[in-house]
Amino acid sequence: MITSLVTGGAGFIGSHVVKHCLDLGHRVVVLDDLSGGFEDHIPQGAIFVQGSVVDDVLVTNLFEEYKFDYVYHLAAYAAEGLSHFIRRFNYNNNLVGSINLINESIKHKVKCFVFTSSIAVYGAGQLPMREDMVPQPEDPYGVSKYAVELDLKAAHEMFGLNYVVFRPHNVYGENQNIGDKYRNVIGIFMNQIMQDQPLTIFGDGEQTRAFSYIDDVAIPITNSVNIPAAYNQVFNIGADKPYTVNELAQVVSDCLGADLKINYLAARNEVMHAYSDHGKAHSVFGAGSGITLKEGIARMAAWAKVVGARKSKEFENIEIYEKLPQGWEKKNTTTTAVPA
Amino acid sequence: MITSLVTGGAGFIGSHVVKHCLDLGHRVVVLDDLSGGFEDHIPQGAIFVQGSVVDDVLVTNLFEEYKFDYVYHLAAYAAEGLSHFIRRFNYNNNLVGSINLINESIKHKVKCFVFTSSIAVYGAGQLPMREDMVPQPEDPYGVSKYAVELDLKAAHEMFGLNYVVFRPHNVYGENQNIGDKYRNVIGIFMNQIMQDQPLTIFGDGEQTRAFSYIDDVAIPITNSVNIPAAYNQVFNIGADKPYTVNELAQVVSDCLGADLKINYLAARNEVMHAYSDHGKAHSVFGAGSGITLKEGIARMAAWAKVVGARKSKEFENIEIYEKLPQGWEKKNTTTTAVPA
Ligand SMILES: NC(=O)c1ccc[n+]([C@@H]2O[C@H](COP(=O)([O-])OP(=O)(O)OC[C@H]3O[C@@H](n4cnc5c(N)ncnc54)[C@H](O)[C@@H]3O)[C@@H](O)[C@H]2O)c1
Ligand SMILES: NC(=O)c1ccc[n+]([C@@H]2O[C@H](COP(=O)([O-])OP(=O)(O)OC[C@H]3O[C@@H](n4cnc5c(N)ncnc54)[C@H](O)[C@@H]3O)[C@@H](O)[C@H]2O)c1
Repeated sequence: MITSLVTGGAGFIGSHVVKHCLDLGHRVVVLDDLSGGFEDHIPQGAIFVQGSVVDDVLVTNLFEEYKFDYVYHLAAYAAEGLSHFIRRFNYNNNLVGSINLINESIKHKVKCFVFTSSIAVYGAGQLPMREDMVPQPEDPYGVSKYAVELDLKAAHEMFGLNYVVFRPHNVYGENQNIGDKYRNVIGIFMNQIMQDQPLTIFGDGEQTRAFSYIDDVAIPITNSVNIPAAYNQVFNIGADKPYTVNELAQVVSDCLGADLKINYLAARNEVMHAYSDHGKAHSVFGAGSGITLKEGIARMAAWAKVVGARKSKEFENIEIYEKLPQGWEKKNTTTTAVPA
Repeated sequence: MITSLVTGGAGFIGSHVVKHCLDLGHRVVVLDDLSGGFEDHIPQGAIFVQGSVVDDVLVTNLFEEYKFDYVYHLAAYAAEGLSHFIRRFNYNNNLVGSINLINESIKHKVKCFVFTSSIAVYGAGQLPMREDMVPQPEDPYGVSKYAVELDLKAAHEMFGLNYVVFRPHNVYGENQNIGDKYRNVIGIFMNQIMQDQPLTIFGDGEQTRAFSYIDDVAIPITNSVNIPAAYNQVFNIGADKPYTVNELAQVVSDCLGADLKINYLAARNEVMHAYSDHGKAHSVFGAGSGITLKEGIARMAAWAKVVGARKSKEFENIEIYEKLPQGWEKKNTTTTAVPA
């Protein structure tokens, strides 16, 4: 029997990968610290271990116990914009945590290590982003993802560890954490609509992204271990068509039957336009699902209506407060003393 | 008064930077954990704090206490070849440790952050290595150095932190740790000659490096904070002329008055040729000292004769033993039980 480790399996993309792995007949172990995921998102049938990839002793013991065939490494703290303000946490969680898994994968001769990197590695270069460009990441999140990619390449050259790297592009769908105020614009919009708040947009809303439905990402990720042509390759993955954030706001409002109300905030430090070339992924994994933005958002909206609005978690350990974007400061709970 | 922090100031290059900073009239604080340096190399007049850059509480307190104007960050575990086998340690020590310093430098508005990166960031690309090439590091040491460079760039863009990045090239000279068996071929050779051992060379010895005398590196590093044209720039630094390791072996043997004896070991995973273009550094920092390889080695040999041979420290926490090069395994102390 094939045994797979899915880190971040209680998270959005990870929970879908777990489901597809179970469908392939894998025994699946989920390692997740629930910092951003939810235990009830983990599909029935998976073995759940609550803990962090940063805990090297735990990671070593898990590899000893389960002798994984495949590792799908999705655990990360993925708030790109926030990463400037939590540099230490970012590199520790996203890089050192990944290295613990790479170390054990080398030692235990894992057959393939699948890693979800990000388009954040590209930086604000030429468009469309293509896998044959040399990345030049511009924020700590992108730097940590790129460092893992480079380390995997080095591990392959030196020790023969096989890997597949995916660079997904603004993924959305069921099981997404819509209570995270630092990222996932679609989830944020849905959460705001369900709380009768206006949609908040940084800048003028004319920045574009190619929002990608979860099936177009989680299915190729899962299947990649069975596709030798994918080994030791890097793939952009996701939708081809970019939309402005303003257009997106309209679609989300429509799908939830709400009037469009937008609150424009000061622009933050982010790339203006981003879309990837997916020719390489299509040639190896086949064409995508063909699900349109409207259809994907409608599906997610149906799910979100059932789940309801979730209260946003504050990130506890901001390291730098200077230039923290509007709305990201930790709220001060000012208790007004009432004289007796 | 100008106050400077020199991390790694008990080490080879760092101890020279401390000396030159003192000569410039700076108050100098050295932070060094003595993992690879020696307290008696720290020049008189510097304040010494023993501790690690990885200890974020210590780093925070130091910045609070001393309000540094400049940070010279030289602390690192720099055994490039060994980094494949100590990945976790490498990223923790060389990247997360650097991030602690960057965080505090942002918060305390340090005027300039000087970082010693390495030519290891380039990878085995075109020669000569030039600063306008996009790096593609190929081992964990190079990846960690490059990640710090990218993080500094991001910190500059976002917070205005000024930096100068140096990529030195095989530096040698007085105060080098000649007892480190994992790196510093010149130190290793001297140590071997003084112990009457043959010189060990990985591969056929025809690999080339441009060995650089310490003054040509430590002086520009120190002066860079006073040269606005150097700010937010990356510089190769070191000698222009490459020599083969075989040629080097001859020069070192000559300078120590020994016959040339070589023990060729299996080749290890390393770049065959490496030399940098230093046009950019020369235009900003002026021409180098003009000290030739023979002259530099003679100076270092004179020093080494006084200091004597040092016993090599074993690195304690190897993470991966597979493919560890010959001679780098930890010696097993096999105690032969003698029947009573
Ligand atoms: N969603 C996107 O648009 C997108 C785009 C590019 C890349 N990615 C990457 O895909 C992966 C999954 O992202 P997602 O959108 O599903 O995010 P998510 O937050 O929903 O899932 C991440 C999961 O990892 C867990 N986790 C975080 N740190 C951990 C740690 N140290 N140890 C164990 N578990 C930990 C969280 O609890 C969460 O369940 C991440 O690596 C992310 O960087 C996502
Ligand atoms: N020597 C070279 O040829 C060369 C070439 C390129 C780059 N560099 C870089 O220059 C810098 C200095 O190198 P060097 O040759 O002087 O090495 P070195 O080992 O002599 O000096 C490094 C010093 O850093 C200290 N140190 C290591 N980890 C530490 C930590 N976590 N906290 C505090 N101190 C720590 C060591 O004790 C040592 O004193 C390093 O960053 C190295 O990567 C050196």
